[in-house]
Amino acid sequence: MRFFSDNTATVHPAVMRAIAEADHVDSGYDGDSWSRRLDAAFSALFGTDCAALWVATGTAANSLALAALCPPHGGTICHRDAHVQNDECGAPEFFTHGAKLLLAEGAGAKVTPESVRATADAIADDVHRVQPHALTITNATEYGLVYSPAEVAALGALARARGWGFHMDGARFANAIVHAGCTPAEMTVAAGVDALSFGFVKNGGMSAEVLVFFRPDLADATRYRRKRAGHLLSKGRYLAAQALAMLENDIWLDNARAANAAATRLAEAAAGRLIHPVEANELFLRATAAEAAALRAQGFGFYDWADGEIRLVTSWNQPAAEVEALASALTSL
Amino acid sequence: MRFFSDNTATVHPAVMRAIAEADHVDSGYDGDSWSRRLDAAFSALFGTDCAALWVATGTAANSLALAALCPPHGGTICHRDAHVQNDECGAPEFFTHGAKLLLAEGAGAKVTPESVRATADAIADDVHRVQPHALTITNATEYGLVYSPAEVAALGALARARGWGFHMDGARFANAIVHAGCTPAEMTVAAGVDALSFGFVKNGGMSAEVLVFFRPDLADATRYRRKRAGHLLSKGRYLAAQALAMLENDIWLDNARAANAAATRLAEAAAGRLIHPVEANELFLRATAAEAAALRAQGFGFYDWADGEIRLVTSWNQPAAEVEALASALTSL
Amino acid sequence: MRFFSDNTATVHPAVMRAIAEADHVDSGYDGDSWSRRLDAAFSALFGTDCAALWVATGTAANSLALAALCPPHGGTICHRDAHVQNDECGAPEFFTHGAKLLLAEGAGAKVTPESVRATADAIADDVHRVQPHALTITNATEYGLVYSPAEVAALGALARARGWGFHMDGARFANAIVHAGCTPAEMTVAAGVDALSFGFVKNGGMSAEVLVFFRPDLADATRYRRKRAGHLLSKGRYLAAQALAMLENDIWLDNARAANAAATRLAEAAAGRLIHPVEANELFLRATAAEAAALRAQGFGFYDWADGEIRLVTSWNQPAAEVEALASALTSL
Amino acid sequence: MRFFSDNTATVHPAVMRAIAEADHVDSGYDGDSWSRRLDAAFSALFGTDCAALWVATGTAANSLALAALCPPHGGTICHRDAHVQNDECGAPEFFTHGAKLLLAEGAGAKVTPESVRATADAIADDVHRVQPHALTITNATEYGLVYSPAEVAALGALARARGWGFHMDGARFANAIVHAGCTPAEMTVAAGVDALSFGFVKNGGMSAEVLVFFRPDLADATRYRRKRAGHLLSKGRYLAAQALAMLENDIWLDNARAANAAATRLAEAAAGRLIHPVEANELFLRATAAEAAALRAQGFGFYDWADGEIRLVTSWNQPAAEVEALASALTSL
Repeated sequence: MRFFSDNTATVHPAVMRAIAEADHVDSGYDGDSWSRRLDAAFSALFGTDCAALWVATGTAANSLALAALCPPHGGTICHRDAHVQNDECGAPEFFTHGAKLLLAEGAGAKVTPESVRATADAIADDVHRVQPHALTITNATEYGLVYSPAEVAALGALARARGWGFHMDGARFANAIVHAGCTPAEMTVAAGVDALSFGFVKNGGMSAEVLVFFRPDLADATRYRRKRAGHLLSKGRYLAAQALAMLENDIWLDNARAANAAATRLAEAAAGRLIHPVEANELFLRATAAEAAALRAQGFGFYDWADGEIRLVTSWNQPAAEVEALASALTSL
Repeated sequence: MRFFSDNTATVHPAVMRAIAEADHVDSGYDGDSWSRRLDAAFSALFGTDCAALWVATGTAANSLALAALCPPHGGTICHRDAHVQNDECGAPEFFTHGAKLLLAEGAGAKVTPESVRATADAIADDVHRVQPHALTITNATEYGLVYSPAEVAALGALARARGWGFHMDGARFANAIVHAGCTPAEMTVAAGVDALSFGFVKNGGMSAEVLVFFRPDLADATRYRRKRAGHLLSKGRYLAAQALAMLENDIWLDNARAANAAATRLAEAAAGRLIHPVEANELFLRATAAEAAALRAQGFGFYDWADGEIRLVTSWNQPAAEVEALASALTSL
Repeated sequence: MRFFSDNTATVHPAVMRAIAEADHVDSGYDGDSWSRRLDAAFSALFGTDCAALWVATGTAANSLALAALCPPHGGTICHRDAHVQNDECGAPEFFTHGAKLLLAEGAGAKVTPESVRATADAIADDVHRVQPHALTITNATEYGLVYSPAEVAALGALARARGWGFHMDGARFANAIVHAGCTPAEMTVAAGVDALSFGFVKNGGMSAEVLVFFRPDLADATRYRRKRAGHLLSKGRYLAAQALAMLENDIWLDNARAANAAATRLAEAAAGRLIHPVEANELFLRATAAEAAALRAQGFGFYDWADGEIRLVTSWNQPAAEVEALASALTSL
Repeated sequence: MRFFSDNTATVHPAVMRAIAEADHVDSGYDGDSWSRRLDAAFSALFGTDCAALWVATGTAANSLALAALCPPHGGTICHRDAHVQNDECGAPEFFTHGAKLLLAEGAGAKVTPESVRATADAIADDVHRVQPHALTITNATEYGLVYSPAEVAALGALARARGWGFHMDGARFANAIVHAGCTPAEMTVAAGVDALSFGFVKNGGMSAEVLVFFRPDLADATRYRRKRAGHLLSKGRYLAAQALAMLENDIWLDNARAANAAATRLAEAAAGRLIHPVEANELFLRATAAEAAALRAQGFGFYDWADGEIRLVTSWNQPAAEVEALASALTSL
């Protein structure tokens, strides 16, 4: 029973079907009929003119977005526990040609206008210091918390006031939307977000994420950068088809709902152990080494996080029986 | 009837089956059981200890290889018509942090020890000039010619004598092997090649190429560079499974044999028009604009190449009827 | 008697005096009173609003200019014998983060609108190819030829029409101006040049070149890039003072006049051997190995250039006796 | 009376003389007779075989050193208040092609083996994290503290045990040596330092710092990187001459002794206000805005540092009268 990561889950049947249906002779790269439908599909979803580019990983989506928003000599403000800072082996630095990540504080990996201002305002405005040019947040965060549209909008207003670009790492965007109960537009373009890494892989996709620009002109250079980074797949239709399949019939929302519900069920069972509120599909729990071992002995797989902490992640198709079994085990600890 | 590119073909059924079979919950990234079999599978194929990394594109494979072989302040010698020079939007420069491509001459996009030496020896040995550190060749070449193992070995000997790394862009490696009638090892490791971009996508794969290092220590840093470039897919098992499926039962060789045979059939039909010998699955033909239009009017799709030249590419599953129809049309021109 | 390079000459006394006069306690970096006069001094010289940044080398000036005009995924067109291509160890690639130099042809290292168009038009307009974003020329060229203001203007018009930035490497700008008999403005801003590397070191300076932007907004990011490249000297006043001293009393023009005159004298003496017209302070001569040895035996130092070619360079204060001696030796060969 | 920075001071007369004496026709770049003496001069000073490269700024020296010690996908551990992290506008990221600075803690900008280990050990050993490859310390530190040879050696032992390169930013190396009362070798090569940025500009030089490699092979690639970064000045002899002049007659030590003594005098006068012990030529003092204003009203120039803090820096030739006047003013506050 694997609660390691939503990366380890299988692929939604509709995605698998879409891949099979895309198995026709068609143009290469992103000239095929599936890829050419992406802009329209995401524009419809967000109710605004978007440029939507498939890429194979969230790391590529994030890094291409930051490269579009921040020059090499600039900096991007992010939370000190952000995925871009800690879990991408320097990909943002690679794609931006060495722009710095400027670290901000905040509980649950959420920055606030205050914490972002504190980071920015500590930087003297001269050529000796790397100046902030962009802000990136993760929603849902690395600790499974969700920024509300209002919280995003407050950060968006700050970014706009300072002349910064504003990016959202939405590796678990679906989980955030489901929790917030808002529209995708409310969470992003209406709140001042310029670029969104729209995650599908953790949510039932196979190998397609979509980088959505709400300022479509930002995509012009990014199309070159995507190619230049080796991310323009020869047979892009198999990626485009995945994303389109996920949007159809709101599979992306259903999947996230299922994963969130499983996490909520576990959170109830482990209420006394929660290190962070559970708003998406991740749980961070206090657990002694002995308790962790006990859970593992019962067949539950998960990662240790820090001393006395464990992380559990639920997937879009986590079997209900596994969830109930783990809930019981947590209750009985 | 599409003769545009082998990138536009469909996927071999065994690849599609392998993807479906890999649809199990397993570890993320390259920790799954498919990815963990890659080193052994390629080591067996080449009869030597290899490190084999999947990546999603040939551009990524080539660029990661060059980054492993050439420092940022160095240069890599390639043919002036090489894919790395002309068709990757500067990806080698991106991954190597600005190393230069140093251009060599040769008919049919093949360099020779003489042409490589001419390029290298024109570079004064001082800090003002970018010094060569590596050599890369494409086999089969961008014009569909094949280096024989002996030709590769002569270049390998030169590279070794000069202390350069030696890379082979094998986007159409299978087509080259089939033409040369040699073993994969004879064409590479035995001839002094350090790293091979082993192409599958143009040969019936979907989205997996494999970067093979014959000096496995080169893979250590490359594993970090792959992640850093956003090329470590979250669910790597679907890529590894493709490559493994292609190797099984020699599908990769069968596919290339079919594509080469189709090209040979067309070459016979257009013998008087050949700009380059046809040794793989690409044909470059002299054709007036009127002749090209006439072919298109009969339903054949292909690219113009230069003034009075067209390019035709055959795929692993190009229907025989299409090939015969085109052969007739070429004969009748 | 050294005719190796104008880099080996001594420093003009006025420059040495200016350095001594700048030896006061003042603000660091470029906050001192000398550095703060640069913009105005160069704006006056060019009759237009300029931003002028000192840097310690022409390589830095050129590379910062290209980085301001060309994005990492783009390309800059230059002559295939350009200094930026051949003599800066990849500095343009370093500062631009891997942008490519796109090579154009032309006699005497001079490109023409036709040759530039030929290079640009051979590049398919798609994401697979590095697209041109800038044009750079050297005036006087690497072979000592001078673009006339009209020739520069024709290239400037082409650059503007294509939306490219336009840079002039003026390592020997003074020599070009003197030869052309035009104003600095006619040769640059009036001809569409966006950025000029204004060379002083080869012309009697010690360690200060000036990067002049005729679009001052380009300097905003460049000020950060200069610092980031380690080129913001702590005691910049000693650099600013050099450049100001050179401008005062037209020393920069007098020096170039002297160097050009010496070269012209030698050109007359070696008229039958000239590979290129002599328009600045460099001579490229046909000379057998025996002839070169004979000259060296008489005490003349210079570089071999290619088989049967030698290069001679005259400096701002090349002793007249040395010039006459060499002229005689050349005549007697 | 300027106590802003040692960057604003004048140049030692011996340096000025050396520049004048270097004003001979000689080879360009670093081929002249002064530059060719550098390796020997620094090897003699450190009692071991060194490679010594002049550069025009400490930022260049530091960045070239880090690029020699840390690959683009790696990280370098430094104090969170280090100059490389805060005051070089991302130069280390530029020269290393995006390697990360990994921040460690410690009072007075001094790291300890414990704090360095804490930073390193928090980084999971997998490809998702940037792994440490080097350690850099500043001696004297950004807060004017001095690492003793024993402290450096403890860090050097840690670096060696972990396989990291070890760099010392010696912008104020002379001040540190004078305070520690040790030999240059004891502070560096004997303590495991691989590369030293040996600062002269803050200590009476004009525009020459020296990057000293105690593993001379590290200089091989660095010579290319220096050129590629535009830091190989055309007339390098004027830089080499500065460094040689500073070493002669121990001027570098005399100058640092004077600056340190002035700072010590001020520290005694402001003993109750010291935020950090004064071990070199910088003082960080508690001072209210009113107190700072009072000092300024008396003609003393200096920087505010943080709320309620000011920084004072003494120079090699700070007039004794100014020091006494400031000491009195501080006492009287």
